[in-house]
Amino acid sequence: MARHAGVIESEHTTDVEHRLGRLLIELNTLLDEYKPDAVVVEKVFFQRNAKTAIPVAQASGIAVGLADSRGLPTRQFTPQQVKMAVTGYGAADKAQVQGMVAKLCGLREVPQPADAADALALAITYFMVERIERRYDTVAS
Amino acid sequence: MARHAGVIESEHTTDVEHRLGRLLIELNTLLDEYKPDAVVVEKVFFQRNAKTAIPVAQASGIAVGLADSRGLPTRQFTPQQVKMAVTGYGAADKAQVQGMVAKLCGLREVPQPADAADALALAITYFMVERIERRYDTVAS
Repeated sequence: MARHAGVIESEHTTDVEHRLGRLLIELNTLLDEYKPDAVVVEKVFFQRNAKTAIPVAQASGIAVGLADSRGLPTRQFTPQQVKMAVTGYGAADKAQVQGMVAKLCGLREVPQPADAADALALAITYFMVERIERRYDTVAS
Repeated sequence: MARHAGVIESEHTTDVEHRLGRLLIELNTLLDEYKPDAVVVEKVFFQRNAKTAIPVAQASGIAVGLADSRGLPTRQFTPQQVKMAVTGYGAADKAQVQGMVAKLCGLREVPQPADAADALALAITYFMVERIERRYDTVAS
């Protein structure tokens, strides 16, 4: 398992049990290292490919479980929620989302690999949603 | 979250992120307490209910990831593999599996709750499969 620009990669030839074990260890290390204030995970939806949805959901469960077990605010957002928050348009394409991520983060280029840009989009979504919810709470109380 | 006869139960009213976090903590405690030689997890298949398959896969990912990250032999078996191993018949019904579990474990009654019997069936499958694989290795080498 290797890390590139904050993206953990695992050997796809290794069996899934061991990849999940390595992921848990790597994520624990990242959480120790960066001490985040919150953790956001893309919500896994079952769409066409059942074979990949299950192991992807297993991996996401590890991220969610680790974060919550450390007492961190932990949220899951759908790709549509991310598109909506970042571009204002729920059916935006990948390039539009990535372009807005670069713009909002003040970056000249879209972060590489694409997974890093996706992670930033999730973080932006968290800030947007939290801000809206705080406003709503102020109005409601 | 509570434990009954080795079965961890969580409040279904709590949000899924927090249930996954509690599960991770509880499973860590169980692994510390029982120090198992191996961990077996039922393989999640996507069938009819997409809404439950994803969070169930997330929970199973935590069990698999924790076990493998501790260096324990970790395997996932499908319900069909379990039925085959325990009863010799891949389409056996729940009652047949439970009856064989009780018989093989020398118990007068089927363990309750049903999840505890399912867990024993997975453990039995592990022994059966490992034994067959060891025999095969002996023949092959």
